[in-house]
Amino acid sequence: MELLKQRILRDGIVKEGNILKVDSFLNHQMDIELLQAIGQEFRRLFPDPAINKILTIEASGIGIAAIAAQYFPGSKVVFAKKTQSKNLDGALYTAPVTSFTRGTTFDVQVSTKFLGPDDHVLVLDDFLAKGQALQGLMKIVAQSGAKLAGCGIVIEKGFQEGGRALREAGVNLHSLAVIDSIDGGRITFRDED
Amino acid sequence: MELLKQRILRDGIVKEGNILKVDSFLNHQMDIELLQAIGQEFRRLFPDPAINKILTIEASGIGIAAIAAQYFPGSKVVFAKKTQSKNLDGALYTAPVTSFTRGTTFDVQVSTKFLGPDDHVLVLDDFLAKGQALQGLMKIVAQSGAKLAGCGIVIEKGFQEGGRALREAGVNLHSLAVIDSIDGGRITFRDED
Repeated sequence: MELLKQRILRDGIVKEGNILKVDSFLNHQMDIELLQAIGQEFRRLFPDPAINKILTIEASGIGIAAIAAQYFPGSKVVFAKKTQSKNLDGALYTAPVTSFTRGTTFDVQVSTKFLGPDDHVLVLDDFLAKGQALQGLMKIVAQSGAKLAGCGIVIEKGFQEGGRALREAGVNLHSLAVIDSIDGGRITFRDED
Repeated sequence: MELLKQRILRDGIVKEGNILKVDSFLNHQMDIELLQAIGQEFRRLFPDPAINKILTIEASGIGIAAIAAQYFPGSKVVFAKKTQSKNLDGALYTAPVTSFTRGTTFDVQVSTKFLGPDDHVLVLDDFLAKGQALQGLMKIVAQSGAKLAGCGIVIEKGFQEGGRALREAGVNLHSLAVIDSIDGGRITFRDED
Protein backbone atom coordinates (compact mmCIF):
# COMPACT_ATOMS: atom_id res chain seq x y z
CA MET A 1 0.00 0.00 0.00
CA GLU A 2 1.93 2.92 -1.39
CA LEU A 3 0.34 5.65 0.78
CA LEU A 4 1.29 3.73 3.91
CA LYS A 5 4.84 3.02 2.76
CA GLN A 6 5.40 6.69 1.96
CA ARG A 7 4.07 7.62 5.40
CA ILE A 8 6.37 5.13 7.11
CA LEU A 9 9.35 6.54 5.20
CA ARG A 10 8.34 10.12 6.05
CA ASP A 11 7.28 9.80 9.68
CA GLY A 12 8.55 6.42 10.96
CA ILE A 13 11.51 6.52 13.31
CA VAL A 14 13.96 3.63 13.54
CA LYS A 15 15.37 2.89 16.98
CA GLU A 16 18.03 0.50 18.27
CA GLY A 17 17.00 -3.14 18.14
CA ASN A 18 15.04 -2.99 14.88
CA ILE A 19 12.25 -1.06 16.58
CA LEU A 20 10.17 1.07 14.19
CA LYS A 21 8.22 3.82 15.90
CA VAL A 22 5.07 4.90 14.08
CA ASP A 23 3.54 6.63 17.06
CA SER A 24 2.90 9.88 15.19
CA PHE A 25 0.24 8.29 12.95
CA LEU A 26 -0.61 4.74 14.03
CA ASN A 27 -0.22 3.70 17.65
CA HIS A 28 -0.19 6.71 19.96
CA GLN A 29 -1.40 9.54 17.77
CA MET A 30 -3.69 8.19 15.04
CA ASP A 31 -4.21 9.76 11.60
CA ILE A 32 -7.84 8.91 10.96
CA GLU A 33 -7.73 9.66 7.22
CA LEU A 34 -4.86 7.20 6.88
CA LEU A 35 -6.82 4.63 8.90
CA GLN A 36 -9.76 5.09 6.51
CA ALA A 37 -7.48 4.33 3.55
CA ILE A 38 -6.12 1.32 5.45
CA GLY A 39 -9.65 0.09 6.13
CA GLN A 40 -10.58 0.38 2.46
CA GLU A 41 -7.47 -1.56 1.48
CA PHE A 42 -8.34 -4.35 3.93
CA ARG A 43 -11.80 -4.52 2.34
CA ARG A 44 -10.18 -4.88 -1.11
CA LEU A 45 -7.89 -7.64 0.13
CA PHE A 46 -10.62 -9.48 2.05
CA PRO A 47 -13.74 -9.22 -0.14
CA ASP A 48 -15.49 -12.21 1.52
CA PRO A 49 -19.06 -10.93 2.10
CA ALA A 50 -19.55 -13.41 4.95
CA ILE A 51 -17.14 -11.53 7.25
CA ASN A 52 -19.23 -10.36 10.22
CA LYS A 53 -16.65 -10.00 13.01
CA ILE A 54 -13.40 -8.06 13.11
CA LEU A 55 -11.20 -9.43 15.91
CA THR A 56 -8.26 -7.45 17.24
CA ILE A 57 -6.30 -6.99 20.46
CA GLU A 58 -6.07 -3.98 22.74
CA ALA A 59 -4.84 -1.36 22.55
CA SER A 60 -3.36 -0.24 19.21
CA GLY A 61 -5.49 -2.60 17.13
CA ILE A 62 -8.76 -1.08 18.30
CA GLY A 63 -8.70 2.13 16.27
CA ILE A 64 -7.60 0.28 13.14
CA ALA A 65 -10.36 -2.32 13.56
CA ALA A 66 -13.07 0.24 14.39
CA ILE A 67 -12.37 2.34 11.30
CA ALA A 68 -11.92 -0.71 9.04
CA ALA A 69 -15.19 -2.27 10.21
CA GLN A 70 -17.07 0.56 8.52
CA TYR A 71 -16.10 -0.99 5.18
CA PHE A 72 -17.48 -4.39 6.25
CA PRO A 73 -21.18 -3.49 6.54
CA GLY A 74 -22.97 -5.08 9.46
CA SER A 75 -19.77 -6.33 11.05
CA LYS A 76 -18.96 -5.87 14.72
CA VAL A 77 -15.53 -5.39 16.29
CA VAL A 78 -14.39 -7.59 19.17
CA PHE A 79 -11.19 -6.65 20.91
CA ALA A 80 -9.34 -9.24 22.97
CA LYS A 81 -8.29 -8.05 26.42
CA LYS A 82 -4.86 -8.46 27.92
CA THR A 83 -5.63 -8.02 31.59
CA GLN A 84 -8.18 -9.31 34.04
CA SER A 85 -10.88 -6.78 34.86
CA LYS A 86 -14.00 -6.85 36.98
CA ASN A 87 -15.82 -6.09 33.75
CA LEU A 88 -14.65 -9.36 32.16
CA ASP A 89 -16.40 -12.33 33.71
CA GLY A 90 -18.28 -15.39 32.55
CA ALA A 91 -16.87 -17.95 30.13
CA LEU A 92 -13.77 -16.89 28.24
CA TYR A 93 -11.61 -18.04 25.37
CA THR A 94 -7.99 -17.53 26.41
CA ALA A 95 -4.58 -17.94 24.77
CA PRO A 96 -1.09 -17.05 26.04
CA VAL A 97 0.87 -14.39 24.14
CA THR A 98 4.49 -13.36 24.54
CA SER A 99 5.04 -9.69 23.72
CA PHE A 100 8.19 -8.89 21.76
CA THR A 101 7.89 -5.20 22.63
CA ARG A 102 7.20 -5.57 26.34
CA GLY A 103 9.18 -8.74 27.06
CA THR A 104 6.31 -10.34 29.00
CA THR A 105 3.80 -13.17 28.61
CA PHE A 106 0.12 -12.60 29.24
CA ASP A 107 -3.24 -14.18 28.44
CA VAL A 108 -5.49 -12.68 25.78
CA GLN A 109 -9.14 -13.16 26.58
CA VAL A 110 -12.41 -12.94 24.69
CA SER A 111 -15.86 -13.58 26.13
CA THR A 112 -17.48 -16.65 24.61
CA LYS A 113 -20.59 -14.49 24.08
CA PHE A 114 -19.02 -12.66 21.17
CA LEU A 115 -17.51 -15.39 18.97
CA GLY A 116 -19.11 -18.65 17.91
CA PRO A 117 -19.49 -21.22 15.11
CA ASP A 118 -21.70 -18.92 13.01
CA ASP A 119 -19.08 -16.16 12.79
CA HIS A 120 -16.70 -15.38 9.93
CA VAL A 121 -13.76 -13.57 11.44
CA LEU A 122 -11.20 -11.19 10.01
CA VAL A 123 -8.30 -10.70 12.44
CA LEU A 124 -6.63 -7.27 12.24
CA ASP A 125 -3.60 -5.89 14.05
CA ASP A 126 -1.08 -3.10 13.70
CA PHE A 127 2.18 -5.04 13.72
CA LEU A 128 3.36 -8.54 12.87
CA ALA A 129 6.86 -9.53 13.94
CA LYS A 130 7.24 -12.95 15.57
CA GLY A 131 3.51 -13.50 15.18
CA GLN A 132 2.72 -14.22 18.81
CA ALA A 133 -0.28 -11.90 19.11
CA LEU A 134 -1.73 -13.08 15.81
CA GLN A 135 -1.33 -16.73 16.79
CA GLY A 136 -3.06 -16.02 20.09
CA LEU A 137 -5.99 -14.43 18.29
CA MET A 138 -6.14 -17.35 15.82
CA LYS A 139 -6.23 -19.81 18.74
CA ILE A 140 -9.20 -17.91 20.14
CA VAL A 141 -10.98 -18.09 16.76
CA ALA A 142 -10.29 -21.84 16.66
CA GLN A 143 -11.61 -22.31 20.22
CA SER A 144 -14.82 -20.51 19.28
CA GLY A 145 -15.50 -22.71 16.25
CA ALA A 146 -15.74 -19.60 14.05
CA LYS A 147 -14.37 -19.56 10.51
CA LEU A 148 -11.14 -17.59 10.05
CA ALA A 149 -11.60 -15.49 6.92
CA GLY A 150 -8.09 -14.07 7.09
CA CYS A 151 -5.56 -11.94 8.92
CA GLY A 152 -4.75 -8.34 7.99
CA ILE A 153 -1.68 -6.53 9.27
CA VAL A 154 -0.73 -2.91 8.80
CA ILE A 155 3.07 -3.30 9.13
CA GLU A 156 4.90 -6.62 8.97
CA LYS A 157 8.53 -6.96 9.95
CA GLY A 158 9.37 -9.37 7.15
CA PHE A 159 12.85 -9.99 8.56
CA GLN A 160 11.27 -11.79 11.51
CA GLU A 161 9.72 -15.21 11.12
CA GLY A 162 6.07 -14.58 12.04
CA GLY A 163 4.63 -13.84 8.60
CA ARG A 164 6.53 -16.58 6.77
CA ALA A 165 5.45 -19.24 9.28
CA LEU A 166 1.80 -18.22 9.01
CA ARG A 167 1.85 -18.14 5.19
CA GLU A 168 3.50 -21.58 5.09
CA ALA A 169 0.69 -22.80 7.36
CA GLY A 170 -1.81 -21.63 4.75
CA VAL A 171 -3.18 -18.62 6.61
CA ASN A 172 -4.83 -16.01 4.33
CA LEU A 173 -2.51 -13.26 5.52
CA HIS A 174 -2.10 -9.83 3.95
CA SER A 175 0.20 -7.12 5.26
CA LEU A 176 -0.15 -3.62 3.86
CA ALA A 177 3.57 -2.89 4.22
CA VAL A 178 6.21 -5.59 4.63
CA ILE A 179 9.60 -4.36 5.78
CA ASP A 180 12.40 -6.61 4.60
CA SER A 181 15.19 -4.81 6.40
CA ILE A 182 16.00 -1.91 8.65
CA ASP A 183 19.72 -1.47 8.14
CA GLY A 184 21.41 1.55 9.59
CA GLY A 185 18.02 3.26 9.85
CA ARG A 186 17.22 2.68 6.15
CA ILE A 187 13.87 0.93 5.59
CA THR A 188 13.51 -1.47 2.65
CA PHE A 189 10.03 -2.71 1.70
CA ARG A 190 9.14 -6.00 0.04
CA ASP A 191 7.27 -5.67 -3.25
CA GLU A 192 3.95 -7.48 -2.83
CA ASP A 193 0.27 -7.19 -2.00
CA MET B 1 -29.15 10.49 23.54
CA GLU B 2 -32.23 8.35 23.15
CA LEU B 3 -30.71 5.67 20.89
CA LEU B 4 -27.97 5.04 23.44
CA LYS B 5 -30.34 4.95 26.41
CA GLN B 6 -32.56 2.43 24.64
CA ARG B 7 -29.51 0.31 23.86
CA ILE B 8 -28.36 0.40 27.49
CA LEU B 9 -31.83 -0.66 28.64
CA ARG B 10 -31.95 -3.46 26.07
CA ASP B 11 -28.41 -4.85 26.26
CA GLY B 12 -26.79 -3.46 29.40
CA ILE B 13 -26.39 -5.90 32.30
CA VAL B 14 -26.35 -4.70 35.90
CA LYS B 15 -24.00 -6.55 38.27
CA GLU B 16 -23.44 -6.41 42.01
CA GLY B 17 -21.74 -3.23 43.18
CA ASN B 18 -23.43 -0.84 40.73
CA ILE B 19 -21.44 -2.26 37.84
CA LEU B 20 -23.08 -1.79 34.44
CA LYS B 21 -21.76 -4.11 31.76
CA VAL B 22 -22.07 -2.79 28.21
CA ASP B 23 -19.57 -5.20 26.74
CA SER B 24 -21.92 -6.38 24.00
CA PHE B 25 -21.86 -3.01 22.21
CA LEU B 26 -19.31 -0.62 23.74
CA ASN B 27 -16.22 -1.97 25.48
CA HIS B 28 -15.47 -5.53 24.40
CA GLN B 29 -17.64 -6.02 21.36
CA MET B 30 -18.24 -2.67 19.61
CA ASP B 31 -21.30 -1.78 17.53
CA ILE B 32 -19.76 0.52 14.93
CA GLU B 33 -23.08 1.97 13.73
CA LEU B 34 -23.87 2.99 17.31
CA LEU B 35 -20.37 4.50 17.61
CA GLN B 36 -21.04 6.53 14.45
CA ALA B 37 -24.23 7.92 16.00
CA ILE B 38 -22.29 8.66 19.20
CA GLY B 39 -19.61 10.47 17.20
CA GLN B 40 -22.20 12.62 15.44
CA GLU B 41 -23.79 13.50 18.78
CA PHE B 42 -20.42 14.56 20.19
CA ARG B 43 -19.96 16.80 17.14
CA ARG B 44 -23.36 18.39 17.82
CA LEU B 45 -22.50 18.97 21.47
CA PHE B 46 -18.99 20.28 20.75
CA PRO B 47 -19.33 22.41 17.59
CA ASP B 48 -16.10 24.36 18.24
CA PRO B 49 -14.37 24.36 14.82
CA ALA B 50 -10.97 24.83 16.47
CA ILE B 51 -10.95 21.30 17.89
CA ASN B 52 -7.99 19.52 16.28
CA LYS B 53 -7.13 16.79 18.80
CA ILE B 54 -9.31 14.10 20.35
CA LEU B 55 -7.64 12.80 23.52
CA THR B 56 -8.69 9.52 25.10
CA ILE B 57 -7.21 6.70 27.16
CA GLU B 58 -6.60 3.09 26.23
CA ALA B 59 -8.29 0.77 25.73
CA SER B 60 -12.07 1.25 25.50
CA GLY B 61 -11.86 4.93 24.60
CA ILE B 62 -9.88 4.32 21.43
CA GLY B 63 -12.70 2.99 19.24
CA ILE B 64 -15.05 5.73 20.40
CA ALA B 65 -12.47 8.44 19.71
CA ALA B 66 -11.41 7.02 16.34
CA ILE B 67 -14.96 6.89 15.00
CA ALA B 68 -15.89 10.28 16.51
CA ALA B 69 -12.83 11.97 15.03
CA GLN B 70 -14.29 11.45 11.57
CA TYR B 71 -16.87 14.11 12.42
CA PHE B 72 -14.13 16.58 13.44
CA PRO B 73 -12.45 17.07 10.07
CA GLY B 74 -8.68 17.30 10.20
CA SER B 75 -8.51 16.21 13.82
CA LYS B 76 -6.14 13.56 15.09
CA VAL B 77 -6.69 11.10 17.92
CA VAL B 78 -4.16 10.76 20.72
CA PHE B 79 -4.64 7.95 23.18
CA ALA B 80 -2.96 8.10 26.58
CA LYS B 81 -1.13 4.92 27.57
CA LYS B 82 -1.43 3.18 30.89
CA THR B 83 1.70 1.08 30.93
CA GLN B 84 5.34 1.63 30.19
CA SER B 85 6.39 0.25 26.82
CA LYS B 86 9.61 0.22 24.85
CA ASN B 87 7.65 2.11 22.23
CA LEU B 88 7.00 5.03 24.58
CA ASP B 89 10.13 7.05 25.17
CA GLY B 90 11.21 10.65 25.10
CA ALA B 91 9.52 13.42 27.04
CA LEU B 92 6.12 12.55 28.49
CA TYR B 93 3.19 14.23 30.18
CA THR B 94 2.09 11.99 33.05
CA ALA B 95 -0.71 11.96 35.60
CA PRO B 96 -1.70 9.36 38.21
CA VAL B 97 -5.11 7.70 37.87
CA THR B 98 -6.92 5.41 40.29
CA SER B 99 -9.16 2.91 38.53
CA PHE B 100 -12.53 2.27 40.14
CA THR B 101 -13.01 -0.88 38.07
CA ARG B 102 -9.59 -2.42 38.63
CA GLY B 103 -8.82 -1.11 42.09
CA THR B 104 -5.32 0.03 41.14
CA THR B 105 -3.39 3.27 40.60
CA PHE B 106 -1.32 3.81 37.48
CA ASP B 107 0.21 6.63 35.48
CA VAL B 108 -1.35 7.77 32.22
CA GLN B 109 1.21 8.98 29.75
CA VAL B 110 1.22 11.04 26.57
CA SER B 111 4.26 11.95 24.50
CA THR B 112 4.93 15.68 24.53
CA LYS B 113 5.22 15.47 20.74
CA PHE B 114 1.47 15.14 20.29
CA LEU B 115 -0.03 17.88 22.49
CA GLY B 116 1.06 21.48 22.77
CA PRO B 117 -0.08 25.08 23.21
CA ASP B 118 -1.51 25.30 19.68
CA ASP B 119 -3.93 22.42 20.21
CA HIS B 120 -7.66 22.56 21.00
CA VAL B 121 -8.49 19.31 22.71
CA LEU B 122 -11.74 17.39 23.11
CA VAL B 123 -11.36 14.64 25.73
CA LEU B 124 -13.54 11.57 25.13
CA ASP B 125 -14.05 8.43 27.21
CA ASP B 126 -16.56 5.63 27.59
CA PHE B 127 -17.41 5.92 31.31
CA LEU B 128 -17.42 8.62 33.97
CA ALA B 129 -17.90 7.52 37.58
CA LYS B 130 -15.55 9.07 40.14
CA GLY B 131 -13.86 11.05 37.37
CA GLN B 132 -10.34 9.86 37.98
CA ALA B 133 -9.47 9.00 34.39
CA LEU B 134 -10.98 12.23 33.09
CA GLN B 135 -9.09 14.30 35.66
CA GLY B 136 -5.87 12.55 34.68
CA LEU B 137 -6.46 13.40 31.02
CA MET B 138 -7.32 17.00 31.92
CA LYS B 139 -4.07 17.30 33.89
CA ILE B 140 -2.20 16.16 30.80
CA VAL B 141 -3.98 18.78 28.69
CA ALA B 142 -3.05 21.42 31.28
CA GLN B 143 0.60 20.29 31.33
CA SER B 144 0.75 20.60 27.54
CA GLY B 145 -0.56 24.16 27.50
CA ALA B 146 -3.31 23.13 25.07
CA LYS B 147 -6.82 24.56 25.31
CA LEU B 148 -9.44 22.17 26.69
CA ALA B 149 -12.48 22.49 24.44
CA GLY B 150 -14.54 20.07 26.51
CA CYS B 151 -15.05 16.54 27.78
CA GLY B 152 -17.47 14.06 26.22
CA ILE B 153 -18.56 10.88 27.98
CA VAL B 154 -20.70 8.07 26.64
CA ILE B 155 -22.13 6.83 29.96
CA GLU B 156 -21.97 8.76 33.23
CA LYS B 157 -22.83 7.19 36.55
CA GLY B 158 -24.60 10.25 37.90
CA PHE B 159 -24.94 8.70 41.36
CA GLN B 160 -21.17 8.98 41.80
CA GLU B 161 -19.49 12.33 42.33
CA GLY B 162 -17.22 12.65 39.27
CA GLY B 163 -19.53 14.52 36.93
CA ARG B 164 -20.94 16.91 39.51
CA ALA B 165 -17.46 17.92 40.70
CA LEU B 166 -16.28 18.60 37.16
CA ARG B 167 -19.39 20.64 36.26
CA GLU B 168 -19.02 22.69 39.45
CA ALA B 169 -15.41 23.35 38.41
CA GLY B 170 -16.71 24.80 35.14
CA VAL B 171 -15.65 21.99 32.81
CA ASN B 172 -17.60 21.89 29.53
CA LEU B 173 -18.77 18.32 30.16
CA HIS B 174 -21.45 16.45 28.21
CA SER B 175 -22.48 12.86 28.88
CA LEU B 176 -24.68 11.12 26.33
CA ALA B 177 -26.45 9.06 28.99
CA VAL B 178 -26.45 9.94 32.68
CA ILE B 179 -27.59 7.16 34.98
CA ASP B 180 -29.08 8.51 38.19
CA SER B 181 -29.63 5.18 39.87
CA ILE B 182 -29.27 1.46 39.45
CA ASP B 183 -31.66 0.09 42.06
CA GLY B 184 -32.38 -3.60 42.07
CA GLY B 185 -31.16 -3.83 38.50
CA ARG B 186 -33.50 -1.05 37.32
CA ILE B 187 -31.71 1.75 35.45
CA THR B 188 -33.02 5.33 35.79
CA PHE B 189 -31.64 8.02 33.47
CA ARG B 190 -31.35 11.72 34.17
CA ASP B 191 -33.19 14.00 31.73
CA GLU B 192 -30.58 16.29 30.23
CA ASP B 193 -28.27 16.90 27.30
